Amino acid sequence: MSPTAALAFSRMASVETIRLGVLGCGTVGTSLIELLNDQREEIARRAGVDLSVRSVVVRDTSKARAGLDSSLLNDDPQALVIDEDIDVVIELIGGIELPYELVQAALRSGKSVVTANKALLAAHGPELYALAADNGVDLLFEASVAAGIPLIRPLRESLIGERISRVMGILNGTTNFILTKMAGEGAGYAESLAEAKELGYAEADPTADVEGLDAGAKVAIIASLAFGEAVLDKDVYVEGITQVTAEDMAAAARMGYAIKLIGIAERHDDDSIDVRVHPAMVPLSHPLASVNGSFNAVFVEGPGIDQLMFFGRGAGGHPTAAMVLGDVIDAAVGKARGAVRPIGNLKEANVRSIDQAETAFYLSIDARDEPGVLSEIAGSFGEHGVSILSMEQVGMGDQARLLFITHTASESNLRATLADLEGLDAVKNVGQVLRVVGEDEPR
Amino acid sequence: MSPTAALAFSRMASVETIRLGVLGCGTVGTSLIELLNDQREEIARRAGVDLSVRSVVVRDTSKARAGLDSSLLNDDPQALVIDEDIDVVIELIGGIELPYELVQAALRSGKSVVTANKALLAAHGPELYALAADNGVDLLFEASVAAGIPLIRPLRESLIGERISRVMGILNGTTNFILTKMAGEGAGYAESLAEAKELGYAEADPTADVEGLDAGAKVAIIASLAFGEAVLDKDVYVEGITQVTAEDMAAAARMGYAIKLIGIAERHDDDSIDVRVHPAMVPLSHPLASVNGSFNAVFVEGPGIDQLMFFGRGAGGHPTAAMVLGDVIDAAVGKARGAVRPIGNLKEANVRSIDQAETAFYLSIDARDEPGVLSEIAGSFGEHGVSILSMEQVGMGDQARLLFITHTASESNLRATLADLEGLDAVKNVGQVLRVVGEDEPR
Repeated sequence: MSPTAALAFSRMASVETIRLGVLGCGTVGTSLIELLNDQREEIARRAGVDLSVRSVVVRDTSKARAGLDSSLLNDDPQALVIDEDIDVVIELIGGIELPYELVQAALRSGKSVVTANKALLAAHGPELYALAADNGVDLLFEASVAAGIPLIRPLRESLIGERISRVMGILNGTTNFILTKMAGEGAGYAESLAEAKELGYAEADPTADVEGLDAGAKVAIIASLAFGEAVLDKDVYVEGITQVTAEDMAAAARMGYAIKLIGIAERHDDDSIDVRVHPAMVPLSHPLASVNGSFNAVFVEGPGIDQLMFFGRGAGGHPTAAMVLGDVIDAAVGKARGAVRPIGNLKEANVRSIDQAETAFYLSIDARDEPGVLSEIAGSFGEHGVSILSMEQVGMGDQARLLFITHTASESNLRATLADLEGLDAVKNVGQVLRVVGEDEPR
Repeated sequence: MSPTAALAFSRMASVETIRLGVLGCGTVGTSLIELLNDQREEIARRAGVDLSVRSVVVRDTSKARAGLDSSLLNDDPQALVIDEDIDVVIELIGGIELPYELVQAALRSGKSVVTANKALLAAHGPELYALAADNGVDLLFEASVAAGIPLIRPLRESLIGERISRVMGILNGTTNFILTKMAGEGAGYAESLAEAKELGYAEADPTADVEGLDAGAKVAIIASLAFGEAVLDKDVYVEGITQVTAEDMAAAARMGYAIKLIGIAERHDDDSIDVRVHPAMVPLSHPLASVNGSFNAVFVEGPGIDQLMFFGRGAGGHPTAAMVLGDVIDAAVGKARGAVRPIGNLKEANVRSIDQAETAFYLSIDARDEPGVLSEIAGSFGEHGVSILSMEQVGMGDQARLLFITHTASESNLRATLADLEGLDAVKNVGQVLRVVGEDEPR
């Protein structure tokens, strides 16, 4: 076909100036200021808004910052959020208590707010979404979950007509980096964590990441939007990756699985939901199994869309700033046109306890290597209604180990089975127990 | 963490009724009506709009349709698009001329329009986007590209602040089904096409799919949004998959590649863009290589986001209807709140000709199996500035075939090399030439 011949248009309404106040200027803030400086003209052309940074709150106003007039710096966040000369507040300070107070004040004084603060939203989201709606302003937070992936807007808008049945994701880059290293190099957990720290993928205190709390906060936010129900971080069952061993990784690979830290929000036929984070075996044929390193991915299922996956950077100053900027433009356009699109009513969620959760399981059992043992063990599974999908023996004699994968079973039945197994003469030790997802469909 | 304890809210403004007119009631229309009936209450609760279907234009009004009061049926599309009792028009009739006329009339009479019609937008999109903006209404088309994947809204909104450098995707399910079958089973093109027809993945006349025209239209729409420039289908260079052989698939697999029909929209440093569709070898390590069967996927790159991928169903009544419904809700909310968000000014695109496109290439050359031949062939590459990444000989003597992969080179240099090679005594035949993407970064 012929090269060019495109049409040009300049029918947009005149460009309106929107005044921005930024709370915090760390890595993301610095990247954002840089992007705003670079893209200002292009944004005015495409979106019809001129984004003008009017005030930036920092701890140390004496420190010079590239691309930022020092006269814009100040250290009074409380004043900024009620400043009549600010239209949109961008909250990038982190933590919960102070941002909670500041975001409320900003919304009440009629400003739209953009935040990347997952902890804040996992603790107070439903309340803040309602406050934004009451005040006729936007509260946008695309970067709060899987920072560099546009997930929130599709969930809020494109998929609002879909009865989403399950969202399942790799939501934490630190743990995925560690697990990828363990899988690829046969390295142990401690060694892999140490390397993650060295390379800047893990913080000095990695607790929030490795114990699954960070992913748990993200699951709460995702579940709220996917199901239209108020889910908070405290509703999410959380298990971290600290108990996963190099041996588990090797056994998983041999059986055709990867071990990933998976966050799951699942809606059952009775409208109750499961929200949980735990290490899980994922079949290698599942798209989530090949999401490696510090990448994040979110897998969404529903009757209309079938299966959908979003994949990208889960963290980092640039990806986060890119998504924050998208929200800032959206909030600015909303301000310019008087057009906000608040999140609708979130109804009360009926969250199942972990005992009622249903998945397939992987179990590793050290057993006596003699006739009749398997039958005895299989009997315990059967008594509790847990059926076996596959079994494999590794090692012989004193080293005999049986690896089982079950069909979908409830946590409570699985626990009852484990208790029985531990009482059997044939069983020397029940080792690792891991959930299996993405294969045998739980219901 | 503890099971439930979530908050409930009911602070939304009162629910507003939005009157819908539907043009066409085939597979997608039927799925949409079904979804609207199922989800009406939930949508009212979450989005604050009551979606009321007031009129459905069909060819045969005497045919009964499930879930649809027959009194709503009529056969006058021209009347529907100017009906004062309709707020949002949903265009699902397909084709170009009639929808072009109808969509213009609807926009002019102040209705927001939702369409899944890629052919219409690839031919007239920029003009219609401007018309929607002029009339203060929404024109939404999430289902027009990669139907079941929420791609348009992220490109329009989340990524509007990102300077996207490249979008690359598997945009046609029919050809991906055929290529996946060829790769997996060693089947030939004709045989695989026949099976695709049998299973309903290919139409009786598969031209638009297998010749790349369908993917070309989608690339035009994607490029327009990704770069904010007016790109039409006629700007897109298109090659189909009819020349790909079972032997090519086998050679690609042996060298660590999959062959996929890839649509590419790429922005260069000088702001010129490439828009093209052609079969390409993709390294097996690239996420697009493992997108199989009738799935679609779109890979987006930029300085902020790094790499981002969307994966899901590219076609089908249910996935398409789910995305159309998301747009309908969005348009309805816009109508209810007087809040439209038109696409900004699209500037003129500077589209490079295919001669200037730069990629790596795969070449298969039947050559004499004697000393000095490789040096002679390599000399031809070198003379035209095409450097060789890897070479492999398969077969010996009369059957000797050399497989080359080059570094990034321009199409014109590659063609000059081919002309030279064809003149060499050492070369018996220049066989397949395929572009390679996703490895050696073109710039």
